Amino acid sequence: MPAESRTEFFQTGSPTAPVRLRDGSVLPGITLAYETWGTLNEDRSNAVFLFHALSGSHHAVGHNPQIEGVGDLWQPEMHEGWWESMIGPGKAINTAEYFVICANYLGGCYGSTGPSSLNPETSKPWGAAFPAVSAADQVEVFAKLLDHFKISVLHAVIGPSVGGLVALTFATRFAERVKNVIVIASGFKTTVLNRLILFEQILAIENDPHFHGGDYYDADAPLYGLVLARMISHKTFVHLDAIEKRARQDVVQPDDVLAWYRVRDQFQSYMLHQGKKFVKRFDANTYLRIIDLWSRYDATQEGDAETPSALFDRARSAGQRWLVFSIDSDFCFYPEEQAELVKHLEEAQVDVMHITVHSDKGHDSFLLEPNLYTPHISWVLGK
Amino acid sequence: MPAESRTEFFQTGSPTAPVRLRDGSVLPGITLAYETWGTLNEDRSNAVFLFHALSGSHHAVGHNPQIEGVGDLWQPEMHEGWWESMIGPGKAINTAEYFVICANYLGGCYGSTGPSSLNPETSKPWGAAFPAVSAADQVEVFAKLLDHFKISVLHAVIGPSVGGLVALTFATRFAERVKNVIVIASGFKTTVLNRLILFEQILAIENDPHFHGGDYYDADAPLYGLVLARMISHKTFVHLDAIEKRARQDVVQPDDVLAWYRVRDQFQSYMLHQGKKFVKRFDANTYLRIIDLWSRYDATQEGDAETPSALFDRARSAGQRWLVFSIDSDFCFYPEEQAELVKHLEEAQVDVMHITVHSDKGHDSFLLEPNLYTPHISWVLGK
Repeated sequence: MPAESRTEFFQTGSPTAPVRLRDGSVLPGITLAYETWGTLNEDRSNAVFLFHALSGSHHAVGHNPQIEGVGDLWQPEMHEGWWESMIGPGKAINTAEYFVICANYLGGCYGSTGPSSLNPETSKPWGAAFPAVSAADQVEVFAKLLDHFKISVLHAVIGPSVGGLVALTFATRFAERVKNVIVIASGFKTTVLNRLILFEQILAIENDPHFHGGDYYDADAPLYGLVLARMISHKTFVHLDAIEKRARQDVVQPDDVLAWYRVRDQFQSYMLHQGKKFVKRFDANTYLRIIDLWSRYDATQEGDAETPSALFDRARSAGQRWLVFSIDSDFCFYPEEQAELVKHLEEAQVDVMHITVHSDKGHDSFLLEPNLYTPHISWVLGK
Repeated sequence: MPAESRTEFFQTGSPTAPVRLRDGSVLPGITLAYETWGTLNEDRSNAVFLFHALSGSHHAVGHNPQIEGVGDLWQPEMHEGWWESMIGPGKAINTAEYFVICANYLGGCYGSTGPSSLNPETSKPWGAAFPAVSAADQVEVFAKLLDHFKISVLHAVIGPSVGGLVALTFATRFAERVKNVIVIASGFKTTVLNRLILFEQILAIENDPHFHGGDYYDADAPLYGLVLARMISHKTFVHLDAIEKRARQDVVQPDDVLAWYRVRDQFQSYMLHQGKKFVKRFDANTYLRIIDLWSRYDATQEGDAETPSALFDRARSAGQRWLVFSIDSDFCFYPEEQAELVKHLEEAQVDVMHITVHSDKGHDSFLLEPNLYTPHISWVLGK
């Protein structure tokens, strides 16, 4: 069993000095749940900030059986870190050399302030009143966490999937605070296809009879809306061949969700099972906040830049080095999206390396095949 | 304006001699709504049976402002035939030569007996009690319509999309009754990807608060479940570039469906608009019946054959000629699906011609670009 890892909490803002989001919303004091691994060196120059994926958490490494205030959502499947294979002594992100930080997103359901947190003004969960949070909002509050650690410059930001969007925005909003940028299977501006797929998921949740605009914490949660949302996205995360392989041969007719339709094949049965497993560990309101962030993501806008070239001029001026990974079988963030990012980086004359890994695992490869990523990450971090 | 075209009705079965479906369900007498164009010749050898797509109707040609018993679902956008550009004097399917028949599917909502029809035993709409209908069931009742016309052998069966699945099954269950088979942008066995996409749509409808298992005719219909289902499928019908072009620049926040989410871009706004337009003209229970037919479609099983080769031996023995169209930009029935069909046909030594048309319109090309299909269809029919 890996070493224990404990979640810490960082508070910022207060009713008199609230956290202001870019759309004008105000939160009177927030908490960020985070974990760290390795040791911050004396000149505070060895920190790596890791950003997690849509349905992930800040618990990337080690064993953590409980997070204060999270309750039943912290299911056993979450207790082991999601990137154990990539972070640790001698691994891609070597904790003998680097101090690694990962924080749960604002709006999250794993300890950071989110829709299920109590609104101090009403003493009830925020629910519908919890605002939309952009990638720019996320990095602004994450920067305050760095201030708390008195870290002025990060050795690197790293993010896979949605975490890559946040890493990109951190690196361009705080260009002088970042030396290396590593993004894996991520994007530059959310594609029309993904905006449609994400919108389907939003409607799936909004149309659940239990959603009530997001004010459902005192009654049943919109579980089947979230099941459907997860199923819609899940098929883009895993390779369809893998679904065929993983799907069990027996077909299970659920007794709780389908009134008319008879489940006829093991693929549908498998995906439904995956969706139902997911809703035990995730909150629908948090899901909406993160897919909204993703859906409207446009790196140029998130960076308050006029053009991609103006955005990445900052990266060049700061002397950043970028490493961009594509996965050839990725149906979620297609390789074309990373190619677009790299094109803009090259046009701005940023030092960038673009690597395509060949995998039959689809988008989830970054979780499953550490060897495809370790050599380049290790090499870039150590340069 | 094209010529008027009237819907006719054909009855078969009765309480004492009911229509039996393959899963054991029983319907005590059914009606099929159909239209015909052209004139049946003296030896009844010039008939062409056309099968419509998922959300289509039997009204392929001409102007038809009203169908008895269909009510408001017969929206103005349906009044013109859906394949006007392909059927008529001198067109691909030349009505100066051929007698063309198209019937609404059993389970449909445009005049054929379906879930919204009255169950004579209860004098209430069938709703949830209306059975699932397979492609084999469809062709069995369609064969009775042919008997009614005393047509023993069809000059051709033709079907695009889901209609191609039904054409294939007609041609293999009644091999001696079909001379030519033309299938466009269709399949052989529904892929895992499509079974997942169709299952998402089923859940979208089942999870609508108004669905009640399908017994919703005395109250609100599950409109937003159907809106979402349509949006999920619509993105596979049209090319994404076309959505980008068609989407209006203004973003409309709907006041009726979304409680929390703010629609932020014109693509989401456009797709929602399309979905909401669709539900004015379609019944959710019918939608479920047809996507269920599609989801479990396997030509071999529908034909009660042991193997694809045994299935298509019938086509070879009958001397059938096949014409299979692929659309290179089709994201609904991918070209690989037609390739699989053609492989099986060739292995069984059936006379088959496989044509790929190049289009930027995606699956819907068959509705939009008659010139891509007309020469080959006309040539095969006239041989």
